[in-house]
Amino acid sequence: MNDEDRSLPGEFKLIARYLAPLSSGFPGAFNLTDDAAVIAPFSGHDLIVKADTVVAGVHFREDDPPDLVARKALRVNLSDIASKGGIARAYMLALVLPKSTTAIWMAEFARGLAADQKEYDVHLIGGDTNASGGPLMIAITAFGEVPHDRMLRRSGAGPHDRVFVTGTIGDALLSLRALQGAMSLTSPEAEAALVARYQLPHPRVSAGPRLLDVATATIDISDGLLADHGHICEESGLGAVVQSESLPLSPAARSVATADPDIFAAILCGGDDYEILFTAPPGARPAVERIQQATGIPISEIGYMTPSLGVAGKRIRVLDADRKELPVRVTGWKHF
Amino acid sequence: MNDEDRSLPGEFKLIARYLAPLSSGFPGAFNLTDDAAVIAPFSGHDLIVKADTVVAGVHFREDDPPDLVARKALRVNLSDIASKGGIARAYMLALVLPKSTTAIWMAEFARGLAADQKEYDVHLIGGDTNASGGPLMIAITAFGEVPHDRMLRRSGAGPHDRVFVTGTIGDALLSLRALQGAMSLTSPEAEAALVARYQLPHPRVSAGPRLLDVATATIDISDGLLADHGHICEESGLGAVVQSESLPLSPAARSVATADPDIFAAILCGGDDYEILFTAPPGARPAVERIQQATGIPISEIGYMTPSLGVAGKRIRVLDADRKELPVRVTGWKHF
Repeated sequence: MNDEDRSLPGEFKLIARYLAPLSSGFPGAFNLTDDAAVIAPFSGHDLIVKADTVVAGVHFREDDPPDLVARKALRVNLSDIASKGGIARAYMLALVLPKSTTAIWMAEFARGLAADQKEYDVHLIGGDTNASGGPLMIAITAFGEVPHDRMLRRSGAGPHDRVFVTGTIGDALLSLRALQGAMSLTSPEAEAALVARYQLPHPRVSAGPRLLDVATATIDISDGLLADHGHICEESGLGAVVQSESLPLSPAARSVATADPDIFAAILCGGDDYEILFTAPPGARPAVERIQQATGIPISEIGYMTPSLGVAGKRIRVLDADRKELPVRVTGWKHF
Repeated sequence: MNDEDRSLPGEFKLIARYLAPLSSGFPGAFNLTDDAAVIAPFSGHDLIVKADTVVAGVHFREDDPPDLVARKALRVNLSDIASKGGIARAYMLALVLPKSTTAIWMAEFARGLAADQKEYDVHLIGGDTNASGGPLMIAITAFGEVPHDRMLRRSGAGPHDRVFVTGTIGDALLSLRALQGAMSLTSPEAEAALVARYQLPHPRVSAGPRLLDVATATIDISDGLLADHGHICEESGLGAVVQSESLPLSPAARSVATADPDIFAAILCGGDDYEILFTAPPGARPAVERIQQATGIPISEIGYMTPSLGVAGKRIRVLDADRKELPVRVTGWKHF
């Protein structure tokens, strides 16, 4: 029996063995041997702080690979930091582990974090570890830097701004449905292309900070495109039109959405895309184009803001190529 | 049926109704209507960051009053910030609620937070709310300010430093035992005096920042006096002697501890005191005295550091008035 297969060591050993190595390179983490961490933004900067929690059975499946669970828990926070124009630097990790957690699970979990720390240049600087009789719970609080008073908000959209989205939407939703066996895709290749999107989002960290001089309002799409776009409408006091033919779908998503209008609607309301939706004046198109070229991330113009506020739950109209309104009900992912 | 008795509203309404009011007065919280918060320390200062999570059935009892649960969850974090010399300013709150959570519970919980925000001048600046089939989980990340590079550490004790403790120890442990019916106290008055200590710790926020120019090492006592003192020994590379007759016990604790040596030992190893243990050179006694006078918090000298490291788990010797070593095994609160 390998040592890693055994039950978890006690709290202090667990921290020393699996978590403290993740703090190396960040002096204010004190190697996780003190009671608190120290962080200060660079001169002229603010810290952006985001807390997002994931719970087994709610945000991921209990048998998902531990390294992917760890990376997703971290990345959903990095996505928010990026969407607000920030550069992520550090995070705190509060873990509530089921009593059945094994050492091999913990080692894999830490390996996932280590991989993403390297990929995104962030460090674990502190946290808390507990066990309970309940499901695995991972509460991360992430820190990013943004020039003073410049954090991108939901509330800044103008009444004639255009609406843009990075990457593609709907893949994570279709991936989850395929994983649940609730949908069969046209081909195994299509399924393989989607599965990664649900288990491992790719926060748009290179695009986010570049939006500081371009975007008037931003949000990351984690509750569904229409729900999150709706938050921008709400906070900016505006309505919006989304042009259905402009929505960026992957080839796999397009093939199933074309065949089934319900799936198309679900894609608009599904969550877990972790793309950035932002607004910018029409004159910003060349700047948006330059961001696309600099980052290699496709950015699509999907519609425009409107001065009319509309009614709550119906701030956004989805129009097809003939400007006919599609009967899409705006719902978002509800956590309860 | 009162509206408050009903089941919880959805996530957005819950945040707007119960949590957003707690963010007022902190501009960077954006009234909890954006995706992240913004915080920056005052010029020349660092942020101290502490994350502590409490779980029903582990750190509090499921039927504890919700306002006290909220206040304790916040205060355990404020205690750490204070013990490190910081002044608390803000906190993030990640809640995982059982599906059975009622609106009245949530209202009481928020009322508790509001009371402590007023008492400690801190603000809720963000967080996350989820529901699960598991126990109630409250993960708080608190932020305090400390002059740049001055956070008090576990590692700074000198080999001839004296060891001091604020307030009294053991009351929370005895309170928990009495609540559990595992111990009967000498009188109802004694029991009443203790119960509050377990349910509602009093972080030493006025003493902590005053220790910046006095203490060489600090820790808040949350895992038991000997365990936490042991952390200072460990990180400072020293041993220590604790003089049993100098330990600050409340009258209620003294009466039961005198009658039963096992209880005395348990008091040394019990948790939840939320006092500050600190080391300072012998010459610092007048300064310690001035802090005691300025804050009204009793501060007791309980022993001294020693150059000899001792062995792990036995760094601290507990001596009675005749300098005879007491057979107290150093154990701390284990979270699993």
